[in-house]
Amino acid sequence: MGERRAAPGKVLRITSLANPIVKEIRGLALAKNRRASGRFVAEGLKLVADAADSGWPIRTLVHTAAIGEDDRVAGLAAKTRSRGGDIVVVSPAVLAKITRRDNPQTVIGVFDQKTAPLKAIRPKDDAVWVVLEQARDPGNLGTIVRTVDAVGGAGVILVGDTVDPFSIEAVRATMGSIFNVTLTRSREEEVLSWMAAWPGPIVGTHLAATIDYRRTDYRGPLLLVMGAEQAGLSPALADACRRLVKIPMAGRADSLNLAVATGVMLFEAARHRFPIDD
Amino acid sequence: MGERRAAPGKVLRITSLANPIVKEIRGLALAKNRRASGRFVAEGLKLVADAADSGWPIRTLVHTAAIGEDDRVAGLAAKTRSRGGDIVVVSPAVLAKITRRDNPQTVIGVFDQKTAPLKAIRPKDDAVWVVLEQARDPGNLGTIVRTVDAVGGAGVILVGDTVDPFSIEAVRATMGSIFNVTLTRSREEEVLSWMAAWPGPIVGTHLAATIDYRRTDYRGPLLLVMGAEQAGLSPALADACRRLVKIPMAGRADSLNLAVATGVMLFEAARHRFPIDD
Repeated sequence: MGERRAAPGKVLRITSLANPIVKEIRGLALAKNRRASGRFVAEGLKLVADAADSGWPIRTLVHTAAIGEDDRVAGLAAKTRSRGGDIVVVSPAVLAKITRRDNPQTVIGVFDQKTAPLKAIRPKDDAVWVVLEQARDPGNLGTIVRTVDAVGGAGVILVGDTVDPFSIEAVRATMGSIFNVTLTRSREEEVLSWMAAWPGPIVGTHLAATIDYRRTDYRGPLLLVMGAEQAGLSPALADACRRLVKIPMAGRADSLNLAVATGVMLFEAARHRFPIDD
Repeated sequence: MGERRAAPGKVLRITSLANPIVKEIRGLALAKNRRASGRFVAEGLKLVADAADSGWPIRTLVHTAAIGEDDRVAGLAAKTRSRGGDIVVVSPAVLAKITRRDNPQTVIGVFDQKTAPLKAIRPKDDAVWVVLEQARDPGNLGTIVRTVDAVGGAGVILVGDTVDPFSIEAVRATMGSIFNVTLTRSREEEVLSWMAAWPGPIVGTHLAATIDYRRTDYRGPLLLVMGAEQAGLSPALADACRRLVKIPMAGRADSLNLAVATGVMLFEAARHRFPIDD
């Protein structure tokens, strides 16, 4: 017997701004609707194509008739339908309403949110995970997801009351990496007890630390623990780190942007993971 | 004879939303008004205090009567007046109008823009300058200014049609470093001929480069050349670099956020500038 296949998706044509599907997709700009539906939106051919390439099912692909003539969009539409997703061909006015922009030349994908439970994470060899506490800025969060992907990292563990990684701003900042990096959301207590059993280094950055970030061993399955934009690491999470390090600073700046600090740490941790060719 | 001192600034009280000073300050949210007036706005006690500490004159300090009772705000107001700047005490409704936010608990400073001419830059010892081509995102630009400050760098040279570094978003992202880092804006041709006479390393990042970013010498007065978010370095600027390097990447991500890439490069270039204590 062959593998079970989804029935091909439908093709709908929508020109009414009041159509309920239009309202529903547009509503995904709000966190409460994303929470209630478990869905989210990614905008742009690159992002949506990245999702398809990663095997992340597209529930609905939205485009205009004009852009549907682009070969890449047509290919994406065929792939989407064959996997059971729907195609919604809209008028330019409807697309403008969904994207809240004039004359958008783009495609929209609607996806199911996916996060992994903390207990499903298996520490592997040289895997890198970022543990991120209460990040407040969607651009920072998305950029961190992108950088984790860039160093070949495994995922991001969101602790406590972090900004929604599935907001349109966060998804856009990932540049498609959201479809390639595992996300986990957990309460602090849960993360703390889970960290206690982690077999590799747990390195946090702290302004009050005395150890230079270049003087620690990042080998093995690594948890890199980063605090919130203003507050830094909570005392409980700082305590759970096996090593606290600082990034040295000169000038008048007394801290780094969170995404930059995480990037500097990830590339430091990746030094042995990216051997230098001779 | 003593040094020449500015006459103390005035204190104005404004409760009318239609007051022309309110309109003028509010208008600085638009690039064309910033261009015409040569002024800009910074929001928040930390930023405005950083400006005062750096000796960057405050033209106008705006606060409510209530927040004026805070000792730090009162001190800042006294310093502003003694240097010839005006104090504008506004009603909460006027402050909300200026900041376009409900119930803002903040102070606003109005400043003169300052940029240095390219020919005023003297290559010194270990000074680090970032040459930034056509950055498009104000948050990225401001974050780069902040990171340059954090590594003790000298300044940022903006090439061509870059986003305005004095927009409220860019200024906010600098976290006060805009008052501590030299900015220069020049046309590409001018920068290219100026670079030809630079006595130290000129290192650019390029996706097509083959040299690992960790395998080059950043000693001496350094120009670090970064391209735009999507386009990367223009061929002309890439040619003007004496060394093109790449930051290695794994995963599906094929590029980094511009501010993150600049941060990783700046901290690599700073390795010998920040000796590791033993």
